[in-house]
Amino acid sequence: MIQNDFYTPEAQGAYELHGLGDFALEEGGTIPDLQLAVATFGTLNEARDNAICIPTWFSGTHATWEQVYIGEGRALDPSRYFIVVINQIGNGLSTSPHNTDGDVAMSRFPKVTIGDDVRAQEQLLREVWGIERLALVVGGSMGAQQTYEWAVRFPDKVQRAAPIAGTAQITPHDVLFTQALMDTLTSDPGWNDGEYASHTDVAGGLRRHAGIWSLLGLSTEFWKTEFWRGIELPDVTFTSLEQFQAGFMEGVFGAMDPNALLTMGWKWQHGDVARHTGGDLAAALGRITAKTFVMPIDEDMFFPPRDCAAEQALVPGSELRVLHSIAGHFGLFGFEPSYLAELDAHLSELLATDV
Amino acid sequence: MIQNDFYTPEAQGAYELHGLGDFALEEGGTIPDLQLAVATFGTLNEARDNAICIPTWFSGTHATWEQVYIGEGRALDPSRYFIVVINQIGNGLSTSPHNTDGDVAMSRFPKVTIGDDVRAQEQLLREVWGIERLALVVGGSMGAQQTYEWAVRFPDKVQRAAPIAGTAQITPHDVLFTQALMDTLTSDPGWNDGEYASHTDVAGGLRRHAGIWSLLGLSTEFWKTEFWRGIELPDVTFTSLEQFQAGFMEGVFGAMDPNALLTMGWKWQHGDVARHTGGDLAAALGRITAKTFVMPIDEDMFFPPRDCAAEQALVPGSELRVLHSIAGHFGLFGFEPSYLAELDAHLSELLATDV
Repeated sequence: MIQNDFYTPEAQGAYELHGLGDFALEEGGTIPDLQLAVATFGTLNEARDNAICIPTWFSGTHATWEQVYIGEGRALDPSRYFIVVINQIGNGLSTSPHNTDGDVAMSRFPKVTIGDDVRAQEQLLREVWGIERLALVVGGSMGAQQTYEWAVRFPDKVQRAAPIAGTAQITPHDVLFTQALMDTLTSDPGWNDGEYASHTDVAGGLRRHAGIWSLLGLSTEFWKTEFWRGIELPDVTFTSLEQFQAGFMEGVFGAMDPNALLTMGWKWQHGDVARHTGGDLAAALGRITAKTFVMPIDEDMFFPPRDCAAEQALVPGSELRVLHSIAGHFGLFGFEPSYLAELDAHLSELLATDV
Repeated sequence: MIQNDFYTPEAQGAYELHGLGDFALEEGGTIPDLQLAVATFGTLNEARDNAICIPTWFSGTHATWEQVYIGEGRALDPSRYFIVVINQIGNGLSTSPHNTDGDVAMSRFPKVTIGDDVRAQEQLLREVWGIERLALVVGGSMGAQQTYEWAVRFPDKVQRAAPIAGTAQITPHDVLFTQALMDTLTSDPGWNDGEYASHTDVAGGLRRHAGIWSLLGLSTEFWKTEFWRGIELPDVTFTSLEQFQAGFMEGVFGAMDPNALLTMGWKWQHGDVARHTGGDLAAALGRITAKTFVMPIDEDMFFPPRDCAAEQALVPGSELRVLHSIAGHFGLFGFEPSYLAELDAHLSELLATDV
C-alpha cells in the first residue's frame, strides 16, 4: 500500500467502506474483499423507493457531489431522497491499486469495466439497504457511462436516468483521448511499470496528464475569456493562466495515484452498453425503460452534444436537455450558478415525472 | 548535421535554397547564412504585380501546397500568377536545427518569431525577384499567422490577404496546446536536451506528439464517421483506426525532427501581431489595408471560427468566409473536394477584387 493524502476523509469528506466479498470481474480475475467507498445523504423511507444512486466520474470522488450538487432545496434534496454516492472501483477511495495488497496491488490490479461497477453498486444497494428500485440514477462523464449501464443492465430497477456529459458507448475520439492521457503516465521514467514507490515519482507524467486535460476538459472560450479569474478556492485566487494551470489543474491531478488514473482510463475507454447486445447500440439503448433526460454540455470538447444527441434518439421516450457552461466538460465542477440552476431545473422536472 | 530523409527533394518535391546572409532575429541572436527553401510556380510578369506568397504551416512544407492547392484552372493558377511557397525557418527544409552546423545547431538553435519569417520572406522576394507588392498572401494555420504578420507589418506590400484556419494573435488555448505538444518531445528520455543522434531516439515522444494531434487536429466527427476510410495514400488504404493512427498520424509526425517541431512550436506559441502596437490587437489589425478574407474551418478544434471571427471584425473591410471540413484543422490537407471547391471559390473572388 502507498499512503496518499488525497484519498482520505480529511481531503474528500466522510465516507463509509462497505465490503462486498470477493468480486469476480467481467474481463476475468477477482478483486478479493472488494470495498466500495460510499457517502450517503438523507434517509431511506419505509417503502424504500426514494433512493438515488450517483456513480462518480474519472478522477472524481463523492466530494464534488456533496459540495456542489446535494443540498436542501436543491433537486438532489436529502430531506426528500436517500442519496447514495458510490465511488467507482479504482478511484482511490474504493478498492484501488495503491490501497490494496497482495495479488491485485499496483501493476497487478485487474481490468475493471463499467459493468463491474454497476454490478457492484447493485449488490451494495440490495445487500446493505434492501433497495430494489432507484428513483433516479444520475452521473456525469464516466458517471454517465455507469448511468446508461444501470438503465440497460437493470431496466426494472431504474425509474429515471440522467446521464450528464457522457455517452453510453465510447466514441473513437474518446478512445484516442483516454489513450493520450494514459500514455503521459506510462511513458514517464518514474512510472517503473506501475511499481513506483510514491505517486510523486511520476510527477512529470501527472503534470503532462493535467496538460492534456487543459486542452479538452475546458473550452477554448474558457481560456479566451480568462474565466478562471472568477474561480475561487479556499485561500487562493488565480491571477495568471500559468498559476491556474499549476495551482488548479496540475495541483488536482498531481495529487492523484497514477495506477488509479490508469484503472479508470482503461475502464472509460471500454465503456459500451452494446456489450449486452453483441455490438448493437440501438438494441441496447432500446432496452431502457427509465424516463431519461440526456444532458450534454454545450461547450464539451470530447462528449459533444451531437454525440449525446445521437444516443438520446435511441432511448425510448427520452429527452435531450442541453446544459450550458463555458467551462465545457469541467462545467461538471459547477463553477457557474446558471449551470447549476439549469441542471437542478431539469433534475427536478425529471424527479417529478410519473413513471 | 543529422541526415533525415523526410527533408529531401525526394520526399517533398523540388525546391531551391536562397541564402539571405547572416540574419538577425527579433528575440536576439543571428542565424548565419540563413537559407530559405523555396518552390515557385508560374512566371513573374514584367510589372512584377502577379506574385503570390504562401508561407507554410507547423510541420508542413511546400509539398501540400504544390500537390493540393496549386494548378492550372485553380484559384492559385501558375499560368496567371507567380506563386512563391516559402518554407518557414526551422521547418526542416529552410535553415533548421538539424541541418546546420556550429553555433546554431540542434539545441543551440535560437528562438525564431513569426516576424522573423516575414522579414526574411520580404527580403527574399525583394532581393531575388524585385517584388515590392504581392497580389496575395495566403497561408493556413501558422501560415495564417505569417499572413496576418505580412498584412500588419507591410501594409503597402500586401494587396490581398487570406489567413486560413489561424489567428493573428495566439490564444490562451493554443498556448496550452503548443506546450502540450512540445512537452511530449522534451520529456522523452531520448531527447537528451536536444542533442539526440537521430530523430528516432525520440520515437516515443514523436508518437505521443502525434497522439495529441489526433485529439485536436481532426474533429470528433471525423473519428466518429471513420472518415479516414476514404483517405487514400499511394499504396495504402486504411482499414482500422489503429492503422490510420500508426500509418498516417504517427507515420507523418514520426519522420520529423524534434528540434524542428520545437522551433516551430515556440514560434507558434509567440505569434502575435500586437507586438507591433504594444499589445493592442485592434490597433495592429487596424493597420491592415489588404482586402482580407478570413477563413476559419467550421470543425477546427483549436482555431475555432469564433476566435477567427473576433479578429476579422477588427480588420477594416474584411470578410468572414467559413470553410467546411469534417477533418477540422486538418481539412487543410484537402481531403475533401467540397472543401477545395469552397476555398478556390473564395480565393478566386478575392483575387478578382480590385484593390
